Amino acid sequence: MSLGKGENLVIGAASTAPLAPSPFRSRWVELPAGVTKLPDDTLAAGFLAAGVAAGIKPEGRDIGLLVSTSPGTTSAARFTISAAPAAPVELCRKHCDLTALKAVVVNSGNANAGTGGRGFDLATYMQGSAAMVTRVPERQVAVASTGVIGVQLSQEPLTKGISAAARELRRDGAADFSEAILTTDNAPKRAALAVELGGGRITLSAQAKGAGMIAPNHATLLCFVETDADLSADLCARSLALAVDASFDRTTVDGQLSTNDSVFLLASGASGFATAGTEDEERFSAALSALLRALAIAILHDGEGAERVGRVVVEGGAAGQAGTVARAVANSPLVKAALNGGDPNWGRILQAAGMALAGTEPAPSIAIAIEGIAVASGGAATRFDLADLAERVAGREVEIAITLGGGDDGGAGPVEMLFSDLSHGYVTINADYTT
Amino acid sequence: MSLGKGENLVIGAASTAPLAPSPFRSRWVELPAGVTKLPDDTLAAGFLAAGVAAGIKPEGRDIGLLVSTSPGTTSAARFTISAAPAAPVELCRKHCDLTALKAVVVNSGNANAGTGGRGFDLATYMQGSAAMVTRVPERQVAVASTGVIGVQLSQEPLTKGISAAARELRRDGAADFSEAILTTDNAPKRAALAVELGGGRITLSAQAKGAGMIAPNHATLLCFVETDADLSADLCARSLALAVDASFDRTTVDGQLSTNDSVFLLASGASGFATAGTEDEERFSAALSALLRALAIAILHDGEGAERVGRVVVEGGAAGQAGTVARAVANSPLVKAALNGGDPNWGRILQAAGMALAGTEPAPSIAIAIEGIAVASGGAATRFDLADLAERVAGREVEIAITLGGGDDGGAGPVEMLFSDLSHGYVTINADYTT
Repeated sequence: MSLGKGENLVIGAASTAPLAPSPFRSRWVELPAGVTKLPDDTLAAGFLAAGVAAGIKPEGRDIGLLVSTSPGTTSAARFTISAAPAAPVELCRKHCDLTALKAVVVNSGNANAGTGGRGFDLATYMQGSAAMVTRVPERQVAVASTGVIGVQLSQEPLTKGISAAARELRRDGAADFSEAILTTDNAPKRAALAVELGGGRITLSAQAKGAGMIAPNHATLLCFVETDADLSADLCARSLALAVDASFDRTTVDGQLSTNDSVFLLASGASGFATAGTEDEERFSAALSALLRALAIAILHDGEGAERVGRVVVEGGAAGQAGTVARAVANSPLVKAALNGGDPNWGRILQAAGMALAGTEPAPSIAIAIEGIAVASGGAATRFDLADLAERVAGREVEIAITLGGGDDGGAGPVEMLFSDLSHGYVTINADYTT
Repeated sequence: MSLGKGENLVIGAASTAPLAPSPFRSRWVELPAGVTKLPDDTLAAGFLAAGVAAGIKPEGRDIGLLVSTSPGTTSAARFTISAAPAAPVELCRKHCDLTALKAVVVNSGNANAGTGGRGFDLATYMQGSAAMVTRVPERQVAVASTGVIGVQLSQEPLTKGISAAARELRRDGAADFSEAILTTDNAPKRAALAVELGGGRITLSAQAKGAGMIAPNHATLLCFVETDADLSADLCARSLALAVDASFDRTTVDGQLSTNDSVFLLASGASGFATAGTEDEERFSAALSALLRALAIAILHDGEGAERVGRVVVEGGAAGQAGTVARAVANSPLVKAALNGGDPNWGRILQAAGMALAGTEPAPSIAIAIEGIAVASGGAATRFDLADLAERVAGREVEIAITLGGGDDGGAGPVEMLFSDLSHGYVTINADYTT
């Protein structure tokens, strides 16, 4: 598309698809000190990426390849806790050195889950093929898949696609790669940050996918993070655990844990700058958390059919109760449908809290505020201006604060959950997915 | 409406509302030996009922009154386990003799939940008013409410409605009563059975309401059961516990435990026939279970926006796993949306099972059959005829059988759950309920 003089490019205006979610547009993401935003399609130094169309999906890119060209690359990975993990997840756990990954091969359009021995063989074939074309030892090649569950992959598009992806590997391949991992997503989710460490500036880049079957722990289908910082495998693991806890573990579209959730962090060291001391480590970790949090919220805004995103923050109660209530509210189809309709039905928040604490003593002193307006205290409705509240819940992000009465929260502090609404779009997408 | 000669009354044909669910139309309800169906609007002997319009709802009946005229009436009741119970539930627990209830007063259009001390006062007022007009001691008058949560009831329609209901009390008042307890229900749910005991024939009648916010334990908003059998309060309690376990505790519309769930069983003894011995007790209990099961399934067929009802039966696995998996499948929005779309997406059943057993060892030997067609065994897809399967899941009731591999189920045997689908109707109803 080329624009003539005087023409205005109105992005998205002529498209029926929603605008690509901007990972840093949410009021719930703050950049730490010393951290700045880079263009979304940045790829950290020391990496090459590609995404090609191999015919697994009816159209669009569906094979992605990510490779580090640096010899001392370190890594960490986290996977779904499902008792029915997909073949690539099983393969990664069994046959990868997760602290020294140098490449990841990924396909969309088929989850390779519920596919038994044949599925495991095909995941192994993907690993072997990617190892061959990238000249990386097999144990350093991770595999990920996303798409429909319970349908066998064909080998032929894998063969063709992995070879083609190897030929397309480029320093500016992050955009193609991030497109190749999408399924029901309306738009790619990618983001990048620059982080000032003591020794110098390093880059963090990431590509994620996810729209439905999103729930903690942990709420992403796939996320790939690259950095050119020089990190120990131990720091990779620690910072990734903290970041996932503050992001994907706090988000839910539909409360459904996937068979395929996988998050990878690869550190090439190509910047030449290592973290030196606790301050650097904390800054890196905070930047990684902000990056994944931005992507997690982008996933919610692009949740299947999502029109609004909610955040619930719960404090007080006995130990563990705040987290239980936060998850119950975030996963309630009644709360989510009310969020969709811009209906400030706080009674459903009370109902979800009562359900979450079922069997315990009634908590008469629960207080609820929506967008800063107190709607309940002492377990009962307060007087508030319904018209004012209705206006405040009409925005794209709605915040709910709950204080549970009594108890000592065990020192846990407030617990937050972020969630998308329940819309007609969700039903449309999910009523007719395989057939 | 009057019909001229030669005209045909085609019920429902000209209506946009679904047909009233027929409680005994489901293949999943079997009548025990010695039990026969009576007209749905039967009211057991020894009871009077009424339902009137008092203006709590914009239109329709909204105050119901049920009274036993027999001196030795026994009873049992079960309530929500929510930690935020509605005022009438708290009142019943605190200020009723639940083994000797003689009357119940109920309103729809307002749940009287999340209403604090004022709400409790109004529930007490309902009890006192009903006691006065029925001349039943206050402690023998139960109170129930259903409708929106978190909005204060007005006293005036209660005063007017309870007086009017007392004037309308009739032996054939079950239909009016059952209409007065509805909220988002499309149709009343009522049913009745005749049970041959050793001594003679007794009657069981029941009226229920519920459409959304339906989940175990236990999955009804309100259910009122009357019998003219002469029962001990102990047998009332035991048979009601068994029946609720086999019915409302096995059903889910949206996984949301209500603040108001209440089930009452009142036994007037007006038939003159008591249960004599174990055989009679078992027959009565089985009949009560069948009755509540029929109503529970009717609630699912009338679930908010529901178009299809599913049944999942899970066996095998370690102790407790079958129940966990059955509930996860029945509450999965992905499984429910696929049921709505007639999409035999068995991968989502596997995913839900994997989520339910998260953190345990992968269960490679899971087997899944839909409507008798094996779709997975050993955790992987089997070959099946997709067109045949698609045809079988297009009916109004769809059955899923899951066998978990390994483990000893602790002798628990198969666990079933019944559930409605997730449709556009559910979203429409719930996106804009209060405003």
